[in-house]
Amino acid sequence: METWRTNIVDAGPAHIRVRGYDVLDLMQRSTFSDLIFLLHHDRLPTSAERRLVDAILIGVADHGAGAPSCAAARLAASGNRQSPSAAIAAGILTIGDEHGGAGSGCMELIAAGLDRARSNGLSFDVVATQLVDESRSAGARLPGFGHRVHATIDPRVDVLFGLASSSGLAGDGIRFARALEDAIRVRIKPIPLNIDGALAAILVDLGLPALVGKLLFIVGRVAGLSAEVLEEYTREKPMRIKIPVAYDGVPPRENGA
Amino acid sequence: METWRTNIVDAGPAHIRVRGYDVLDLMQRSTFSDLIFLLHHDRLPTSAERRLVDAILIGVADHGAGAPSCAAARLAASGNRQSPSAAIAAGILTIGDEHGGAGSGCMELIAAGLDRARSNGLSFDVVATQLVDESRSAGARLPGFGHRVHATIDPRVDVLFGLASSSGLAGDGIRFARALEDAIRVRIKPIPLNIDGALAAILVDLGLPALVGKLLFIVGRVAGLSAEVLEEYTREKPMRIKIPVAYDGVPPRENGA
Amino acid sequence: METWRTNIVDAGPAHIRVRGYDVLDLMQRSTFSDLIFLLHHDRLPTSAERRLVDAILIGVADHGAGAPSCAAARLAASGNRQSPSAAIAAGILTIGDEHGGAGSGCMELIAAGLDRARSNGLSFDVVATQLVDESRSAGARLPGFGHRVHATIDPRVDVLFGLASSSGLAGDGIRFARALEDAIRVRIKPIPLNIDGALAAILVDLGLPALVGKLLFIVGRVAGLSAEVLEEYTREKPMRIKIPVAYDGVPPRENGA
Amino acid sequence: METWRTNIVDAGPAHIRVRGYDVLDLMQRSTFSDLIFLLHHDRLPTSAERRLVDAILIGVADHGAGAPSCAAARLAASGNRQSPSAAIAAGILTIGDEHGGAGSGCMELIAAGLDRARSNGLSFDVVATQLVDESRSAGARLPGFGHRVHATIDPRVDVLFGLASSSGLAGDGIRFARALEDAIRVRIKPIPLNIDGALAAILVDLGLPALVGKLLFIVGRVAGLSAEVLEEYTREKPMRIKIPVAYDGVPPRENGA
Repeated sequence: METWRTNIVDAGPAHIRVRGYDVLDLMQRSTFSDLIFLLHHDRLPTSAERRLVDAILIGVADHGAGAPSCAAARLAASGNRQSPSAAIAAGILTIGDEHGGAGSGCMELIAAGLDRARSNGLSFDVVATQLVDESRSAGARLPGFGHRVHATIDPRVDVLFGLASSSGLAGDGIRFARALEDAIRVRIKPIPLNIDGALAAILVDLGLPALVGKLLFIVGRVAGLSAEVLEEYTREKPMRIKIPVAYDGVPPRENGA
Repeated sequence: METWRTNIVDAGPAHIRVRGYDVLDLMQRSTFSDLIFLLHHDRLPTSAERRLVDAILIGVADHGAGAPSCAAARLAASGNRQSPSAAIAAGILTIGDEHGGAGSGCMELIAAGLDRARSNGLSFDVVATQLVDESRSAGARLPGFGHRVHATIDPRVDVLFGLASSSGLAGDGIRFARALEDAIRVRIKPIPLNIDGALAAILVDLGLPALVGKLLFIVGRVAGLSAEVLEEYTREKPMRIKIPVAYDGVPPRENGA
Repeated sequence: METWRTNIVDAGPAHIRVRGYDVLDLMQRSTFSDLIFLLHHDRLPTSAERRLVDAILIGVADHGAGAPSCAAARLAASGNRQSPSAAIAAGILTIGDEHGGAGSGCMELIAAGLDRARSNGLSFDVVATQLVDESRSAGARLPGFGHRVHATIDPRVDVLFGLASSSGLAGDGIRFARALEDAIRVRIKPIPLNIDGALAAILVDLGLPALVGKLLFIVGRVAGLSAEVLEEYTREKPMRIKIPVAYDGVPPRENGA
Repeated sequence: METWRTNIVDAGPAHIRVRGYDVLDLMQRSTFSDLIFLLHHDRLPTSAERRLVDAILIGVADHGAGAPSCAAARLAASGNRQSPSAAIAAGILTIGDEHGGAGSGCMELIAAGLDRARSNGLSFDVVATQLVDESRSAGARLPGFGHRVHATIDPRVDVLFGLASSSGLAGDGIRFARALEDAIRVRIKPIPLNIDGALAAILVDLGLPALVGKLLFIVGRVAGLSAEVLEEYTREKPMRIKIPVAYDGVPPRENGA
């Protein structure tokens, strides 16, 4: 088998280094959010960047036991109490474009918009309107906007953008996301940025690739899933969950095989 | 369907609270490791406790692309590039008593030892020797001791215990783990505490239940898995991984069906 | 890396053989249940054995969309519509000792009972009564007995045992399972064999190891999970599932961090 | 919570029916492949259809322990020996467009081609050439063609098409797949249909939706994964697998945090 190559971790018998940094030193001086930034970037964050990473991870960690990710983790903990990793994995598997993963699509949208604005010398407002119109005529949803619970506005968005603004880290990512929000309001109806869209805008400004929009949601949500699994193991009996189902298919018939 | 109950998160349309704390406030003032502690405990950590949680999570986050968890995540990213959550979940599923999960067993061992020492007025050395002898005669492994790479000593253990000691948080958990290490050396041979055993001792001293030994390993490792998946997606072609296999079963035979 | 060894499949560029049989020949002459038996045994089944394997797999394939396995698969399909394999995997992860996996524990119980009866020259009734009493005094559940829906009797059990009996395959496994059922009725109360217990008894008589009790349930259930995922993808909108949750934890409090 | 609806299984306390058929009757008279067809279709298969379903499931069940799906399942079995369902799930998670899942994309391609040919009164050859040219100019791969092991021809393809032909079930799906193969040879170079493409053509002719191309691969492969996990549990020690890794990232550096 070919030897695998990696530029993330160098783990020898006498040392472990993460992107060049001695892990023993990181353990003594850095925070977990520093390490998360480092693992996905090529350097450690500044203290302002660390604050944003902490805020994002805290913001997405847990949105209640009834969210699909938490509910699936609890179902697995309910039927299979031999493996907490199985329960956490079941929760993670519910995360996709429709649940928690819209950040990646929104980062691609913002990146495409910034690229078009710069290449063609267009204003953000003009490009945002173009993208909204194009998405609308293609019948596509705009990832990062709208939420099934927070019909009007998700207060976590303002907190994230406030932190970015007060620390001087609000850049073109946030400006373009706001331009998209304006264009949506004008061309369709008011559909506010959601938490996925807010983290997408910030992650663009932090220089991270689009896939990280989905990945950071997962990293944060696992903290919540872990606690939900702990509660299910310690507080609830196995197989307590019964989902009510009604059959509406074909009536009874004979097997002529 | 019955309404589920939970004491972790209260997520209403106008607020999200984690064990009573407003998530908007946590986003602005706390670290991700604070939240992780809070989710698994009933309060926020002190700054010394936060340091230990950060050190544990950083210490277990990534031990190289060839560890079973990372390798499985990369295999999934190699064959199924539609879902990064599927790749991270595949990595998590390799975590059990044999890989990364020994912390829970070690916490149970320490808790049982502390209970026996206190109930019977025995010294830690006496109880540790009893447990080692009992485990040996049962043919069982002692969880939290020994490592396939670090044959002598894992330097992360000393860092963790040094941090606990210097901040005044080293308690009976660490003392009993060291007593077990001594008893193993005397009754069997020197088999040092590994990273799972070290985090187990510290988590006992932090007042966390045994299941958290496995859960915190998962929470930390997911940060590494996420970065490994990002590297596989962005640097490697799909289906690049070929494992060499030799068949040693029965020779070709005829199907008489 | 060391080459892996296997005695299951020999897959060369010009051939694929499963335990010595040419897969091209199997494709033309055998059934999927033949192959499943072959993969877990060292030979192809007789036609009577094939009938039992088919009956078991059909019997466990799907018990309704509200079972934990199906519900978790649908939750994953609801939030992550990029990967049907993620949804099926989420469903599988709910399968453990408490849901679908009791067959393995029951096979171990039957095997232990048969071994004790043969070694000590005791009747099945005597040994079954001993095992029931031992389990009861240990406060353990007897795997393979009782069902949350079928309070009295699961009709699939009679069908499986009827097929085994009429084809001459009912052996000591089934006889010992019935002895256990009798002993439970006499020493505790009537708790009938469930589908897991019935397949366990039959798999013992087919000469399969205990782990297969869990594995065959999974193989059969995946057929149902696949259909449930297909229905969720094609009939339901993403994120349609909302689980009602009530928070009963500590009241709002201030973050003094 | 809203009651879920389903048209697959009606599971009451006194009966279980799959699409109207009594499961007790199916257990006694039908094969597992009958049930698999029924679960994904709206009726039971004819005997010729059943033969094709069996051949497909047998053909994809196991391609060797080193395939990504089997390797990931073995890695999980190696590190987490508490949950065979976790190991099987890890294997399934590697299945996507790049590994085993190309059947769905190929079914969509064939369906689009048949639709275009019928709507515009064009021959299959003309439409196939159009699709190949369009795919080529878009820089896309044609799903269902080519294999990393079988550089020339996968013998399972001929067996599947031979069975379809001899039983009179070869229809427009197979004809269009062959037209695509011809067009690829003429416009690009000879790239033969692979097993995913062959099952795609047959599943189109059986009237199944495109998602089933991926789902049936999973249903078949789980049989092999189950056997691979059984072998890993019973024949190999935990944590035996070591993947060789070389670090090629930045050199050691100081943490100035």
